[in-house]
Amino acid sequence: MKSKYPDDSLALHTDLYQINMAESYWADGIHNRKAVFELYFRKLPFGNGYAIFAGLERMLDYLRDFRFSESDLEYLQNDVGYNEDFIEYLRDLRFTGDIYSMVEGELVFGNEPIARIEAPLVEAQLVETALLNIVNYQTLIATKASRIKQIVKDEVVMEFGTRRAQEMDAAIWGTRSAIIGGLESTSNVRAGKLFNLPVSGTHAHSLVQAYKNDYEAFHAYARRHKDCVFLVDTYNTLKSGVPTAIKVAQELGDKINFIGIRLDSGDISFLSKAARKMLDDAGFPQAKIVVSNDLDEYTILNLKAQNAKVDMWGIGTKLITGYDQPALGAVYKIVSIEKENGKMEDTIKISANVEKVSTPGMKKLYRIIDRENGKAEGDYITMYDEDPQQEERIKMFHPVHTFISKFVTNFEAKNLHTKVVENGQIIYDSPSVQEMREYAASNLELLWDEYKRSLNPEEYPVDLSQKCWDNKMRNIQEVKDMVEEIELG
Amino acid sequence: MKSKYPDDSLALHTDLYQINMAESYWADGIHNRKAVFELYFRKLPFGNGYAIFAGLERMLDYLRDFRFSESDLEYLQNDVGYNEDFIEYLRDLRFTGDIYSMVEGELVFGNEPIARIEAPLVEAQLVETALLNIVNYQTLIATKASRIKQIVKDEVVMEFGTRRAQEMDAAIWGTRSAIIGGLESTSNVRAGKLFNLPVSGTHAHSLVQAYKNDYEAFHAYARRHKDCVFLVDTYNTLKSGVPTAIKVAQELGDKINFIGIRLDSGDISFLSKAARKMLDDAGFPQAKIVVSNDLDEYTILNLKAQNAKVDMWGIGTKLITGYDQPALGAVYKIVSIEKENGKMEDTIKISANVEKVSTPGMKKLYRIIDRENGKAEGDYITMYDEDPQQEERIKMFHPVHTFISKFVTNFEAKNLHTKVVENGQIIYDSPSVQEMREYAASNLELLWDEYKRSLNPEEYPVDLSQKCWDNKMRNIQEVKDMVEEIELG
Repeated sequence: MKSKYPDDSLALHTDLYQINMAESYWADGIHNRKAVFELYFRKLPFGNGYAIFAGLERMLDYLRDFRFSESDLEYLQNDVGYNEDFIEYLRDLRFTGDIYSMVEGELVFGNEPIARIEAPLVEAQLVETALLNIVNYQTLIATKASRIKQIVKDEVVMEFGTRRAQEMDAAIWGTRSAIIGGLESTSNVRAGKLFNLPVSGTHAHSLVQAYKNDYEAFHAYARRHKDCVFLVDTYNTLKSGVPTAIKVAQELGDKINFIGIRLDSGDISFLSKAARKMLDDAGFPQAKIVVSNDLDEYTILNLKAQNAKVDMWGIGTKLITGYDQPALGAVYKIVSIEKENGKMEDTIKISANVEKVSTPGMKKLYRIIDRENGKAEGDYITMYDEDPQQEERIKMFHPVHTFISKFVTNFEAKNLHTKVVENGQIIYDSPSVQEMREYAASNLELLWDEYKRSLNPEEYPVDLSQKCWDNKMRNIQEVKDMVEEIELG
Repeated sequence: MKSKYPDDSLALHTDLYQINMAESYWADGIHNRKAVFELYFRKLPFGNGYAIFAGLERMLDYLRDFRFSESDLEYLQNDVGYNEDFIEYLRDLRFTGDIYSMVEGELVFGNEPIARIEAPLVEAQLVETALLNIVNYQTLIATKASRIKQIVKDEVVMEFGTRRAQEMDAAIWGTRSAIIGGLESTSNVRAGKLFNLPVSGTHAHSLVQAYKNDYEAFHAYARRHKDCVFLVDTYNTLKSGVPTAIKVAQELGDKINFIGIRLDSGDISFLSKAARKMLDDAGFPQAKIVVSNDLDEYTILNLKAQNAKVDMWGIGTKLITGYDQPALGAVYKIVSIEKENGKMEDTIKISANVEKVSTPGMKKLYRIIDRENGKAEGDYITMYDEDPQQEERIKMFHPVHTFISKFVTNFEAKNLHTKVVENGQIIYDSPSVQEMREYAASNLELLWDEYKRSLNPEEYPVDLSQKCWDNKMRNIQEVKDMVEEIELG
């Protein structure tokens, strides 16, 4: 039970193997060698053409507070069985490295570094699991929200998913991510408070049942709330709910602000059209129809195709869980490490699957923007000491099918990384969630529509510089040579 | 940012409409009328034949601490705009009701009450969202884990999913649920500490990369850790990883406990068989092969069909997110409410979908167990004042297709609800997670195998007593009469 440990910290929110490795590094005295890790995912979620990064603020909160508490240390020593000398070492451990990261609301694509962690090996290792846990979920949900917003466009979308979220942190961080991705409001009051988000909601079926009928319930609600959206499907939408909502609105006139009705079950297409007609005929053409009920971008697209009369959308389960792909697969890979002589050496992870081979070395990430039309030409990954802005023309080529290439001139090379942590100090102040949301929306302007469609979008280029590519090939060859040596005995 | 509010409470972890309704109830003076709500889901997840309930301990933690903090009240008044008199009312609000609930590890099926909440209307309403948020996720994951365990049987399964979990609460409560559902251990150290779970894990690819090759890395790990499972797929599984693991094990002999190797990529079927042969040939027939890499019950079943040589399974993403159905749809419905005269009156929610019509009234839930063979005949929902154990023979009939029926005699009627909260006081002490796990396993013995298979299981009967059925029909008729009256004007 959580309350057993008042000093519960998140330093233990990691996989056991990280602590095992930390112990080995420490025992061998290589724990303070500088290491560079990159955090990235390989494949965009939901078959989408882009993702929206979210999670930085929570990452920074976690890093700021990173330390093993007394009960953590006792647990590691007495229950897991680490030696006391190692426990003493952990007692004073803090995160002292540097982090370069995208900011929240940034567009992100596969195989490009979201964040680069430069820290003593042991520290970079211990924070891996929590950073992935944060980024994977929040980026997933911001991306799902953006997909939905692309379909809904200018109508209002509200996040209603708390009850179906995967526990409490998902509810609040997920709804925050959904707002960054483009939604307008949340039903979760705590998220509203913690992150200063607009909150929305009116009443549920239980209100109607508590008052025994629609009429009493709507009146009861209206007595205390000026803005009224009546939920009309408790007993019978078209025979009781909608006519009663109209009757109450007529009876109360200016005493309330009759915003409209909400449909939460049944055939939304049919019911919304019938309800629209009833509201119009009764003289409430401005009354809005809010719908909810397991909606996502696919059902919304279909409802629009059927000319459903919907003004506002409430999205729950399918958004807050990223239902059709509930996990983003971001990974955290070491790309460079300090050698005994103090020099940095690049390192690579090989895999039977070519797309899983990591790209070694400390790198930078640029978004190449055409100065004439303001659109992004692609993202461009370079070695750390390259500056594409100094070039007149760069060659961008596909990182797998290298013959697919183009030359780009007259471009702006936008560095997508901001230094957010320096020597363990958080040096970045997150903007408001509303500003992140606006930043995400403005970023989407950089993309041609072909990258933004929800079905079969065009693949956005994420290319390696020639130097970066050459370095990768050299590292692959070195591993091949090493394996061959082992083979030959 | 969370840290802005040191008094952050979970009372606000609810949907705005709950607070709106609370305000209406309070303003109308009906907030303290006794209400009975039931928490249940309609459809079993993953097409499984049963679910495993989890979440009670967290529910009780939440209810014990339920109160609005100062910053909550300030937010509600200043930001959301509730009146001061209502805010003053909320200040002293606590949960004062009674709760009857299944205990964790209980088998649960569709349309039967997991928990019954009897409380003043306003309190029962305000806690709805958080209770659903907890039960939906934890029950989902316990069930998914049980499905996996049904396929794996006696081999060890470890939970490795933290990095892909939907934020931090999901990681720790999800892995706890996975243990209840039958898994053996978790990689999440914090969950291990908080819930006293066995933790497991060895090392990652980064250790190998930090030491530049398998040989140095395995030796480094072995210097500090007696129990060794070497991860062999960093560079080349069969040419470097496995032969090097064998070489190091041979060199170190008794100095280490060479448990085995882990495969985390590539063709697990092929690689495990090849690695098994290499280990056997080298004189390590007892060395175990641990595998991980996006596994779930389907891939495991297929690997077994191919005679993959796997001794231990590490399960991540697919379990911790309930990947193929990442949300359970539990709902929370009012079934009875006190009238002005103090008498209780049943209430029903009607829907165009028959399976969404709620079952009114305060009810009990029994598991009918055949005394001869010890197997469950089905679950049996009665009105509150019925006791099936007093009957010699009961008629069990399908709640939709009522002609499907059977008579049952010589049975034990096990009441599945325990009183866990009385007048707001928690009167239930949760057993250890290990005991919950054993309880779940023993419950599965009650089920015929036909209910437990992962594909197309037989439907387990969840039936209503005749009295319960009659009461439901009466309530439906009353609503129909009411709607007809409205229609006739």
